[in-house]
Amino acid sequence: MSHLPRHVEIHEEGPREGFQIEPRSFPLGERAALVEALADAGLAQIQVASFVSPQRVPQMADAAELFGAIRKRPGVRYTALWLNEAGYRRARAVPQVDPVGTLHYYASDAFARANNGRGADEMAALQRDWLRRYRADGVAVEAAYVMTAFGCNLEGEISEATLSRVLAGLAAMLRDEGASLPKVYLADTVGWANPRAVRRRVDLVRQHLPGVRVGLHLHDTRGIGMANAWAALEHGVDLFDASVAGLGGCPFSGHADGSAAGNICTEDLAFLCAESGIDTGIELERLLHAARLAERIVGRRLDGKLMHAGTLQTLRARGPAP
Amino acid sequence: MSHLPRHVEIHEEGPREGFQIEPRSFPLGERAALVEALADAGLAQIQVASFVSPQRVPQMADAAELFGAIRKRPGVRYTALWLNEAGYRRARAVPQVDPVGTLHYYASDAFARANNGRGADEMAALQRDWLRRYRADGVAVEAAYVMTAFGCNLEGEISEATLSRVLAGLAAMLRDEGASLPKVYLADTVGWANPRAVRRRVDLVRQHLPGVRVGLHLHDTRGIGMANAWAALEHGVDLFDASVAGLGGCPFSGHADGSAAGNICTEDLAFLCAESGIDTGIELERLLHAARLAERIVGRRLDGKLMHAGTLQTLRARGPAP
Repeated sequence: MSHLPRHVEIHEEGPREGFQIEPRSFPLGERAALVEALADAGLAQIQVASFVSPQRVPQMADAAELFGAIRKRPGVRYTALWLNEAGYRRARAVPQVDPVGTLHYYASDAFARANNGRGADEMAALQRDWLRRYRADGVAVEAAYVMTAFGCNLEGEISEATLSRVLAGLAAMLRDEGASLPKVYLADTVGWANPRAVRRRVDLVRQHLPGVRVGLHLHDTRGIGMANAWAALEHGVDLFDASVAGLGGCPFSGHADGSAAGNICTEDLAFLCAESGIDTGIELERLLHAARLAERIVGRRLDGKLMHAGTLQTLRARGPAP
Repeated sequence: MSHLPRHVEIHEEGPREGFQIEPRSFPLGERAALVEALADAGLAQIQVASFVSPQRVPQMADAAELFGAIRKRPGVRYTALWLNEAGYRRARAVPQVDPVGTLHYYASDAFARANNGRGADEMAALQRDWLRRYRADGVAVEAAYVMTAFGCNLEGEISEATLSRVLAGLAAMLRDEGASLPKVYLADTVGWANPRAVRRRVDLVRQHLPGVRVGLHLHDTRGIGMANAWAALEHGVDLFDASVAGLGGCPFSGHADGSAAGNICTEDLAFLCAESGIDTGIELERLLHAARLAERIVGRRLDGKLMHAGTLQTLRARGPAP
C-alpha cells in the first residue's frame, strides 16, 4: 500500500559524517565552500560539524572556526552535533550554530557502552537532564534519535521488544516532564535495516509516540539503503538524513565492523523523490555541483551514483528524433 | 500492497557485463575461476561471455576458450550472448555453451540504430527470423528482452505507449508463429527506471503477455537500482539479472552517457532477498568470496557494498551480552 508523502525533508549530514571519518583533515575554506554549495542546492538543514574531543577527533577541532567561515543563507539551519556537556558548551559559544535540542537513545547496550562508556539505560536516564538543560537554555527540544535501532555489530539484532522498551521509556519521560517532541529518528547506525523492519519499526514509533514525525537516519552499509528508503517513503516517512556524494564511507578508516559506510546518498535520494513526484525543495543540478565538489575535496571517487551519471533533466528534454 | 515472492531467481551477468566493459583483458584462468566461484555460491545461471566481434570487443575474443576452461557444475546453466548470426554460429560451435534462445527488442529507435545500425522496428522484424532459427535448431526460445524499456539517453523517456507497441508486436508475432515465451525482461539499459515506472511497466507486460514471467535487468546508474528492485519484488517480480560486486560499472570506460554503470549488485540483491525472507538458493558467504575474487581480478575497489561490510550471519549469532 503506497502512501507516498508529497513533500520530503532531507537533512544533510555529509560535512560532519564525511569529514569526521577521514583519516586526514581538509582545508577549512573547502569545507565551508561545500556547506555553502549544499545550501545553494536547497538543503534546508545542514549538519556542519561536531563539537567532540579534539584529541579523539582532530578533524573536528576547528568546528567553531568552520562555522565562522560560512556565509549563511537565510532560511537554512546550520546545525552541530555534541554528545556531552563540554561539547554543548563549546557549540553554544558559537553564534553561527543554530541550536537544535536533540536527545540520544541507544537500543544496543553494548554500542552505548562502546561509544560513551555508559550503558543504554544510563544514557536514557541522562536524556532527562538534557531535556531540562535545553529548556532552561531556551533551546527547542526537537528530536530524539534512537541509535542502533535495528541491530548492532556488537550485540546482534535488536529485537522489536527492546526497541519498544526504549520508545516507551522516552514516551514516559516526556509525559513526566510535560514535554513533547516533534520528531523521533530511527538510526540504522551500522546497516542492519531492511524494508520490512523499517515499516514495522516506524509503526512502533507511531504506536508509542502518536503524532510524532518519524525520521530515518539510514546508512548504506550493505547496499540496500535505498530500498529501505523507498519502503519508508511508501510507508509515509517524510524525513531523512542523508550525505552528499555518500560522504562518510571511508575505505581507509579501518572500521572492520562496517561502521565506516556512509549515509544514503543525498542526491540519489533526492533523485528518487523527484522521479516519484515528491517535492524536496532541492535543485538536483546544483546538488550535483556540491557532490562533485565533495569528491574534489576528498580526492577520490565517492560512492554517489547520480553525480557520475548525471540527472535525466536535459536528456528527458531531447525526445524522439524527428 | 506487498506480494513478495517466496523464491527469486537471480541470473549472474558479471562475467560478461563486467569484463566486456573494462579497457583491458584479464587472464582467462582468473575469469574461469570467478565463474566457478559463482556457481559454487548457488547461482543457477551465469552469463559467461558474449560472442561478438573480436575487433570491436577484444576482451571477449577468447569466449570459446573461456567456456572450455570452466569446470561445469551440474544443474548450472552457462550462457552466452550473441547479437548476430555470426556470433550465434560461433557460440553453437562451443559444446560448453548452454544455448538459451533469446529475442532482443528495442523500445528506443535511436538506441537500436546506435547499437545495431538498424531501427527498432527493423530489429523487431528480425526477431521472427531468430525465433524460427532457434526452433529449427532445437534451441528452446526462452526469453525476450526489451532493451531501453524505460528511457534512453539518445531519445529521452520512452513512453508507456511506445513500450506497449513493442510488447503488442511481440505478442502478435508469437501468435502468428504459434509460439509461446516463458519470460520477458524489461531492461533498464541506461538507468531511467524508478519504482513507479517499474510497477506500471511490469503491469504492461502482464497485460500484453498474460501468464509470462516478467524479469528485470536493472542497472544502478543513478543510485536507485535497489529501490527499483524492491518495488519490483513487492510487485511480485521473481526474476532478476544482476552482477557480482556490481561488475560492469567502469570509471575508465569513458561512457560519458552513463552507460558504463553496472547492473545492480548480485550479492546486495541476494542480501535484500534473504533479509526479506525470500529464498534465492544462494549462499551469501560463498557469493562474497566470488565478489572479492572479482575485485582482486579487476584490481580496484568495486561498487558492491555487502562484500566490504560482510553479512549479518555471524553478527546476528552473537546476541546480547550475558
